Amino acid sequence: MHITGALLVCIGLTMLFPLAFSLYYADTGIMPLTQSLLVTVIVGLAFFIGFQRPEPIGALTHREGMAITALGWFAAGVFGALPFYFGGLSPHGVDCLFESISGFTTTGASILTDIESVPKGLLFWRSLTHWLGGMGIIVLSLAILPFLGVGGMQLYKAEVPGPVPDKLRPRIKDTAVLLWKVYILFSLLETILLMLGGMSLFDALCQTFGTMATGGFSTKNTSIAYFSSVYLDAVITVFMIIAGINFTLHFQLLRGKPLVMWRDSEFRFFIGLFLIFTLITTVSIWGVAFDSLGQSLRYGAFQVASILTTTGFVTADYELWPSLPQCILVLCMFIGGSAGSTGGGIKCMRILLLLKTAYQEIIRLIHPRAVIRIKLGKQVVPPEVLSGIWGFFILWLGLLFLSVFLVAATGVDVLTSFSSVLACIGNIGPGLGNVGPVDHYAAIPTLGKWVLILCMLLGRLEIFTVIILFVPEFYRK
Amino acid sequence: MHITGALLVCIGLTMLFPLAFSLYYADTGIMPLTQSLLVTVIVGLAFFIGFQRPEPIGALTHREGMAITALGWFAAGVFGALPFYFGGLSPHGVDCLFESISGFTTTGASILTDIESVPKGLLFWRSLTHWLGGMGIIVLSLAILPFLGVGGMQLYKAEVPGPVPDKLRPRIKDTAVLLWKVYILFSLLETILLMLGGMSLFDALCQTFGTMATGGFSTKNTSIAYFSSVYLDAVITVFMIIAGINFTLHFQLLRGKPLVMWRDSEFRFFIGLFLIFTLITTVSIWGVAFDSLGQSLRYGAFQVASILTTTGFVTADYELWPSLPQCILVLCMFIGGSAGSTGGGIKCMRILLLLKTAYQEIIRLIHPRAVIRIKLGKQVVPPEVLSGIWGFFILWLGLLFLSVFLVAATGVDVLTSFSSVLACIGNIGPGLGNVGPVDHYAAIPTLGKWVLILCMLLGRLEIFTVIILFVPEFYRK
Repeated sequence: MHITGALLVCIGLTMLFPLAFSLYYADTGIMPLTQSLLVTVIVGLAFFIGFQRPEPIGALTHREGMAITALGWFAAGVFGALPFYFGGLSPHGVDCLFESISGFTTTGASILTDIESVPKGLLFWRSLTHWLGGMGIIVLSLAILPFLGVGGMQLYKAEVPGPVPDKLRPRIKDTAVLLWKVYILFSLLETILLMLGGMSLFDALCQTFGTMATGGFSTKNTSIAYFSSVYLDAVITVFMIIAGINFTLHFQLLRGKPLVMWRDSEFRFFIGLFLIFTLITTVSIWGVAFDSLGQSLRYGAFQVASILTTTGFVTADYELWPSLPQCILVLCMFIGGSAGSTGGGIKCMRILLLLKTAYQEIIRLIHPRAVIRIKLGKQVVPPEVLSGIWGFFILWLGLLFLSVFLVAATGVDVLTSFSSVLACIGNIGPGLGNVGPVDHYAAIPTLGKWVLILCMLLGRLEIFTVIILFVPEFYRK
Repeated sequence: MHITGALLVCIGLTMLFPLAFSLYYADTGIMPLTQSLLVTVIVGLAFFIGFQRPEPIGALTHREGMAITALGWFAAGVFGALPFYFGGLSPHGVDCLFESISGFTTTGASILTDIESVPKGLLFWRSLTHWLGGMGIIVLSLAILPFLGVGGMQLYKAEVPGPVPDKLRPRIKDTAVLLWKVYILFSLLETILLMLGGMSLFDALCQTFGTMATGGFSTKNTSIAYFSSVYLDAVITVFMIIAGINFTLHFQLLRGKPLVMWRDSEFRFFIGLFLIFTLITTVSIWGVAFDSLGQSLRYGAFQVASILTTTGFVTADYELWPSLPQCILVLCMFIGGSAGSTGGGIKCMRILLLLKTAYQEIIRLIHPRAVIRIKLGKQVVPPEVLSGIWGFFILWLGLLFLSVFLVAATGVDVLTSFSSVLACIGNIGPGLGNVGPVDHYAAIPTLGKWVLILCMLLGRLEIFTVIILFVPEFYRK
């Protein structure tokens, strides 16, 4: 409660940025943002001061780390929804929570039916939640809160549980600072490039938040299609791919070690998938959805990058494309970005290791006595990492099916149930059917929205951190 | 080639049974069946005599076992298609092959648009292919061919590669004989019960073949719905479930050890799934698709049993049902019957072990230093069995996606592409969309049919036996 309080104060203070935009544009977002800021900071302070921790915080256990992270994310979602609720975006609390959780988890699924009618300050907050959640609110607090100390490692592991997490520096605080520096640098670069393409500072910042966090909230009803510019499409495509790469590799690149990136199996796998899927998609839609090869490549590459990195920006309605590219985009929804990136999904690292296991089993059938070891680069992957990935994969699929059942039980059709859950648990945003690229989530029944909210959190925290709270064993001594 | 020749002679001789029905009904199936019988037996004898094996057959290697099994199944499919081709069921060879492979693999996907217009002899052959393929043509030849000896174990493992295969007797030939005896016993029982319900011997035998093999070919255009009898629906539901249970357990039951069945984790899992899914389905369709609870239970239980055991018989068009039961049936398509049953799909045993892996990973997160062992009953599952199951699962999913891409590339819509591949690789039969419970596969383009033919073989031989032939490593010394 103590740490969650500190987290809430941070979240509350970040509302100053959208407030500045509201003041600049003199829109109706001023009041709701001020109210939300005050409520969040006051509640945060009350928790921070009211619940003191006897021992030093360095002594955080593994279990406490998971509980704090799960609670912190839920609290961020609830208080992040206040501006939308006070701003009257929807009379239903669940809708505002949906939008906020969708923001923080970088899903980008929206219940808004007319985005452009929303005050700019609130739209800025909506996009900012992406950016805060993208690199991680825990990683953020590790970087800026002085008192988390060594216990922070447990929090970090709970928020970034991906396989083979790379620590860049011995102290977790330094790693968090470095990651945020790289993130800010790329965000600045994209903002400048988008402004050079004619976007206002407001639009450029909001689209950047959506890109770098692989979120997908736009400031326009028709998403990126609104800007209708080859240059802007190209810039956003490139930055979506950048956001889908392990940020540790970006850091190495910036330190002048570009070869580290190329030697990374996951990077090659991710880029390889992007190129192959773009090639197939481009060829499939050429002459069907678009006349010229250039147009096909532009829209093909954008949509593949958007779905593969789980961003969810849209420049073309892929539901009008032939079956093959649609199936490829569905596969992309499962795969997602790299481990250590801001992308969601199952993650390339896991998919790569799963495929390696399958291949090794074929070899074992041919040479039954061979000793099989699965390698990543030159390192042998330990069996407990592999079984962790197996456990994750099965839980992910199991929760996918269970959630589809629950959403379907509220009366939503089969395709929409399936793709809305997939788009939420993978933190993507648009799906197929009634939640397709040109639709929204407003029409999903309330119970279904709650299921999807839980899916977004499960997906962002990579399942274990959330689901562990529901296992009785967790509460035993 | 030598062994495949012997296999073909067996297949050819079994055509005597449909020929007898053709002669009895004096239908136009006499000529095509006689021609097919002669061609198959002559080609089989030519192979058997022409290719002699220098060493004794007892010395079959693991790799030879797999190659013989894959070749044997493909040959059975090709020669089994001859009666359909000579009988003019379709002018396209691929259609006849599709029907034959669909029969032997117990898929039950049909390209026939008017089943009732086909001569009875040919319909009998169509259903008989189910029955031969259900318990396994290799297991059949092990039971009846005297010369296969100890080498037969390699063949048996290639055809029944499921996890933890139980040998009933030290000699594999004895096991094969026992399995076939149990299979024949239950088939006789069902035939008698169906005849007591008013079916002719012909209809009773054909529906029995479809049930006990979990195949799904019927002799009527509207499948089992044609008979429109509560009694017959109940009998077939019970026997579909029986066919979805490990036949080793049936053997123990018949030996007077009923408790062995109840102590088996997979049996409890399979029956538990059937009961839960039936309950949910019944409640969901009650008052929507059917007015009375009894009707809902009757149609709910039948459809769940049919899809879960991968039979594919139909008494109601589930595409008209609400979303939830439809999603449950799709999940059933993935799961399938028990290991050692005639059912397809991923199989309950694998699903159970996959779920146990996931649960153990949650426990490991809570107690990081605990030693984790996955148990089945009282036995610890060895890690190589687990990684074999993981490898199978990934390959299965990977081939599913790849095949969906190929079918979608032929211009088939997304839902039909997905469900046709799922229905074929799972050896189920009916899917959703244009291959739904009241549709057929005639309209799938030729290339798509070839992909589905391969899927049916991959599914029946549990992937490894087929895919291994495409790995270069397989052909190295």
